Amino acid sequence: MKKEKVSAAFLIIGDEILSGRTIDKNLNFLALNLNEIGINLNEVRVVCDLENEIIDAVNAMRKKYDYVFTSGGIGPTHDDITSASIAKAFGVEVVLNKEAEGILKNHYGVEINEARLKMAMIPVGASLLDNPISSAPGFFIENVFVMAGVPKIFEAMFFAAKKELIGGKKTFSKEIKVSLVESQIAKDLTILQQQNPEITMGSYPFEGGTALVFRGIDEEKTLLCSKKMAEIAQKIKPDSVLD
Amino acid sequence: MKKEKVSAAFLIIGDEILSGRTIDKNLNFLALNLNEIGINLNEVRVVCDLENEIIDAVNAMRKKYDYVFTSGGIGPTHDDITSASIAKAFGVEVVLNKEAEGILKNHYGVEINEARLKMAMIPVGASLLDNPISSAPGFFIENVFVMAGVPKIFEAMFFAAKKELIGGKKTFSKEIKVSLVESQIAKDLTILQQQNPEITMGSYPFEGGTALVFRGIDEEKTLLCSKKMAEIAQKIKPDSVLD
Repeated sequence: MKKEKVSAAFLIIGDEILSGRTIDKNLNFLALNLNEIGINLNEVRVVCDLENEIIDAVNAMRKKYDYVFTSGGIGPTHDDITSASIAKAFGVEVVLNKEAEGILKNHYGVEINEARLKMAMIPVGASLLDNPISSAPGFFIENVFVMAGVPKIFEAMFFAAKKELIGGKKTFSKEIKVSLVESQIAKDLTILQQQNPEITMGSYPFEGGTALVFRGIDEEKTLLCSKKMAEIAQKIKPDSVLD
Repeated sequence: MKKEKVSAAFLIIGDEILSGRTIDKNLNFLALNLNEIGINLNEVRVVCDLENEIIDAVNAMRKKYDYVFTSGGIGPTHDDITSASIAKAFGVEVVLNKEAEGILKNHYGVEINEARLKMAMIPVGASLLDNPISSAPGFFIENVFVMAGVPKIFEAMFFAAKKELIGGKKTFSKEIKVSLVESQIAKDLTILQQQNPEITMGSYPFEGGTALVFRGIDEEKTLLCSKKMAEIAQKIKPDSVLD
């Protein structure tokens, strides 16, 4: 049965994000693309390349959310420990997956080696996620989707994963900009929020004004709230002191 | 006493990051700047604007790490619930902080209002963090530093927070680039890693090669490992098939 609200979490695995060496580009892509299919990204964690950290985070998230997506750590080097850690989180073994082995042997030909075959070591019970970019597949086991960290490959694997996802009702979003600082519209926005608890209202300052974001499953009501707030804001005279 | 290894976590609070509306810019800044003063960023979480989510994350992180930094949710609108949530996490009240009230009254003059004074509601026992950009201060309570989400303000508050932080030994980092795919250097890198467990070695593919990152407290040994690996890589003939 289709659920109305479908939740997801994203686990970014990688020392390189935490050290500041690499800037993550997958979070925003995932958030926007999940939203498109009616899945809400509710939590993100970034953990380092340590087995226990990965296991704890995956187990906490897979119980709490409908879907979990992970990025990073499925390459051929010693610091790629995601597949083995996911297997441990599920209490299963990693084995040489015949289908993945075939894909890699087909891609590398005579240049197949031990490190490359490591990328075919997949938890028992997992299904593969196609990787049209560099062949080595991602996989999913129950509600956990394990994907590469390189953005181009992460994105390709997400499109493979998408076929397996069942979304809920899509959240509609309407943003308006007002030439007032946050503290001048705070009171009216609070009242509007209290009158419409099913619409989530967010307020984000920028230089010279405030962006107000209205989000809800009911498109008409979301739009109506944004219009009401725009009308209220028009009647307020901007303060001389900025927030 | 100065600790050798000092750990930190970062809690990003905001629906706007999880919905994809806003791209976080603070994680990378924080990671690099903590590293500069010998503090390792070990975990990041992004949670939505819900009290229980914030309380659970803060309480988990403040027990596990030496320092916790938060961003977002300390403005004047109804969706800014960070200060109240942090207070609950510590089991204390939020009260009108006289020092913060003075700063805001000085900044806003006659245009002070209820929403603006909300930004002076600070948990009992917290100390303020100066905000030279827009005046409304951040604060810290025990090992938790509560800062704004707007990058310019987050950065300014971090520099205020820095005076309170005691770092450990700085992690030295050396990156080399080799014109080989990851799976060609995986084996040698694993051996080098096993021989030097105190140096963390990371391998990151890019178009046409691999970046190898060596990180350790011992600068000389870190450099030596990177040199050794560069020498090994030079002797390997690139494969024709890419990873």
